[in-house]
Amino acid sequence: MDADVDRAESLAAPGARDLLLQTASTIMREGDVVDISLSELSLRSGLNSALVKYYFGNKAGLLKALLDRDMDAIVKSVEALLAKDEMSPEAKLRRHISKSIDTYYDYPYLNRLLMRLVRDSDEAEAKRIADQYLLPLHRAYERFIGDGVEAGTFRPINPRLFYFTLTGAADRFFSARLVLKHCFDQDTLTEELRNSYREHTVDFVMAGILAH
Amino acid sequence: MDADVDRAESLAAPGARDLLLQTASTIMREGDVVDISLSELSLRSGLNSALVKYYFGNKAGLLKALLDRDMDAIVKSVEALLAKDEMSPEAKLRRHISKSIDTYYDYPYLNRLLMRLVRDSDEAEAKRIADQYLLPLHRAYERFIGDGVEAGTFRPINPRLFYFTLTGAADRFFSARLVLKHCFDQDTLTEELRNSYREHTVDFVMAGILAH
Repeated sequence: MDADVDRAESLAAPGARDLLLQTASTIMREGDVVDISLSELSLRSGLNSALVKYYFGNKAGLLKALLDRDMDAIVKSVEALLAKDEMSPEAKLRRHISKSIDTYYDYPYLNRLLMRLVRDSDEAEAKRIADQYLLPLHRAYERFIGDGVEAGTFRPINPRLFYFTLTGAADRFFSARLVLKHCFDQDTLTEELRNSYREHTVDFVMAGILAH
Repeated sequence: MDADVDRAESLAAPGARDLLLQTASTIMREGDVVDISLSELSLRSGLNSALVKYYFGNKAGLLKALLDRDMDAIVKSVEALLAKDEMSPEAKLRRHISKSIDTYYDYPYLNRLLMRLVRDSDEAEAKRIADQYLLPLHRAYERFIGDGVEAGTFRPINPRLFYFTLTGAADRFFSARLVLKHCFDQDTLTEELRNSYREHTVDFVMAGILAH
């Protein structure tokens, strides 16, 4: 055990942890899966799989670290947007919708990974995920939408339900790539299709929420 | 092998096939999973697990039969709605959105099951799923939306992209039940919350698509 850790320590290099996470992310994105084999991870990253144990304990720890990496970026970006006092609720929401499409384009596995970790974790860890990532997003939505409703820009909309409408629309498209492939011989993970879907979603959601 | 089949045949009873499918559906819905153990299926249905082999060949065959059962009902219902010549595009779409929410309430696993079977099947079976279920739905959306755009009722919207927006919004809510449980101590699979989300979604999507 200690020998293993010593050995892994000797293999560790600056950036190795990030590279493992990024490689895991790429494998999930390309394969449309929410799981990875450690041997594939080792092969693709060029890093010894003992490093997974060294940095993350085990595969579950790696999945958790990947969720943390991706969700942390989202929560920070939503909170930065909320803090822009000079920006109107409409401009903020427009920016946020665009960003959500880009997020699911980059991490099409994200929602499924989140669901899986909430389901497979013990009560305390599921609660941590909820408290650290989901509640802040729900609170942000309450402010986003609440400010716009108050300003008369938005129709009265339940922010909690709206969160699912928007993330569902964003998530569903990029997790459907295999379906699109077989139906239309088309890959959803192209920048061109991402741009079309981003435009469609911003347009559609803003039309659904703006007061007339 | 033949003895097994003989034995299973003697266990078969009218309705046993349907009961196996319905029990599998209930297990997936309650457990928020897209898989089942045959021993749980046998226990919950009160039927011998040899019947799975008899009716479906194996577990993959059972999953496929469940997808067929659920998707067939959806495609038939969408086609029946399309055939109602006296109904306006707006009324049809309103009805269809309501129905989609009810569908994902009943079968919250449906989209994940579909993705999984498309991913894990061979090319021919994936193509069959696409041709039999997804292309008819896409063609129906082209007519739903196309007729409304032509009538000037709807804004010009890409029907193919709209399909993902709507099914994403419907799917996401009911597949997020564990998240809601941990965030808000709330179960999404209640009729009350289904009704709220149905109202929210019909309202939101219609506002997003109606021409003003």
